[in-house]
Amino acid sequence: MPNYMVRISFVGTRYSGWQIQPDVPTVQGELVKAVSTVFGEEVRVTGCCRTDAGVHAKDYVASFRTTRDLAEFKVLRGLNSLLPKDIGVREVRKVDDSFNARYSVKGKLYVYRIWNAESRDPFLYPFSWHVPKSLSREAMEEAVRVLSGKHDFSGFAKLEEEDRETIIDLDISLNFKENLIELSFRATHFLRYMVRRLTGAIVWVGQGRLSATELKDYLSGKNFPFTAPSQGLTLERVFL
Amino acid sequence: MPNYMVRISFVGTRYSGWQIQPDVPTVQGELVKAVSTVFGEEVRVTGCCRTDAGVHAKDYVASFRTTRDLAEFKVLRGLNSLLPKDIGVREVRKVDDSFNARYSVKGKLYVYRIWNAESRDPFLYPFSWHVPKSLSREAMEEAVRVLSGKHDFSGFAKLEEEDRETIIDLDISLNFKENLIELSFRATHFLRYMVRRLTGAIVWVGQGRLSATELKDYLSGKNFPFTAPSQGLTLERVFL
Repeated sequence: MPNYMVRISFVGTRYSGWQIQPDVPTVQGELVKAVSTVFGEEVRVTGCCRTDAGVHAKDYVASFRTTRDLAEFKVLRGLNSLLPKDIGVREVRKVDDSFNARYSVKGKLYVYRIWNAESRDPFLYPFSWHVPKSLSREAMEEAVRVLSGKHDFSGFAKLEEEDRETIIDLDISLNFKENLIELSFRATHFLRYMVRRLTGAIVWVGQGRLSATELKDYLSGKNFPFTAPSQGLTLERVFL
Repeated sequence: MPNYMVRISFVGTRYSGWQIQPDVPTVQGELVKAVSTVFGEEVRVTGCCRTDAGVHAKDYVASFRTTRDLAEFKVLRGLNSLLPKDIGVREVRKVDDSFNARYSVKGKLYVYRIWNAESRDPFLYPFSWHVPKSLSREAMEEAVRVLSGKHDFSGFAKLEEEDRETIIDLDISLNFKENLIELSFRATHFLRYMVRRLTGAIVWVGQGRLSATELKDYLSGKNFPFTAPSQGLTLERVFL
């Protein structure tokens, strides 16, 4: 049975996240439909991770096994002609039997974008969180220093039954491009809501609502209460 | 009577262009509604030009006169809180009485974006024309050389009763950024469909469907028959 890896990208605005659910549009749902049509058989598609409703991906990895053997370029063309315009397949590759999108991923890079200006940018609006009042760069940089490194991030997560390791070595960087602030988060794995809650905390520090010292409480048991909106979050890169 | 200039930007996907029309969403329609609400009076808004349905603007200039006198920052805030998310007001300025968006504009820069790759980019899709097959850069550069400069562009326009000068000094430049091709057009004024038809012609030359020499026929009377799709076109800058 051939084993295929696909790299896709999607604008998440219209979707209730990656994972297939009845009666709502999901990225997995669209991909299963397109892959099954191209191969003429029912195919199960495995994704590298869940994503929250409204989150985007410039890079996302999925895999599936089929009984039929089709050339990679034919699968690429077939999928792109069937998928909605807000999902694009960037690469299709036959991989060896051991590959599984869920378990073969070595790390991920998320970018959270904040538009920090009084007036709105309609082009960035669907891909950023609009924070009109000016944020303190110095305070945000201090917050990033506190949160970077190896910590127990359960205070920034909604823990789920699956119980992944909550101690994570996290690399955060902060980039200011005029009114656009980009927070990049890189780690081997992430907990649910972790990036959006860490972003919320860093913005609170930038607003003076929370001190960088108080932030430490959330690394030792306390639960951070605010989750930044999903539309600002993009899965930027998946490392295999 | 105070005279206001506003610079806005909009994602044109949802709109039947700038100009107000009954029963369809237009950018002018939305702006008239918001301005009239902010000032509590019926206000007529003049735009710097028409735009085709689906065309975007990163910069667009409009102007209006009111009886009430409100501070610029209050108008900016009020408009941004009332307008839909795909229209943003970037600047509001009181200008002297002689200013009129239609007649005070000295030039415009349009950019037409082409995504030239087999696979689709869902993030660029709404802002570009997807041309899957590879285009010849050399041929396109030659076409740009033929079309640049002072010519009668009526062969690339749908002429309208208003009869603006059809001899235009046009500056075109071509930029390749990996799979993204950007065609920039700068002139004092443009004719209807001119940028989209010139783009169509340059792409035809890039595809080998038309030679650069044959292009010249369209600068001397012949009508070019193809108009590139509107979603790839953005009014990038208005010069005052």
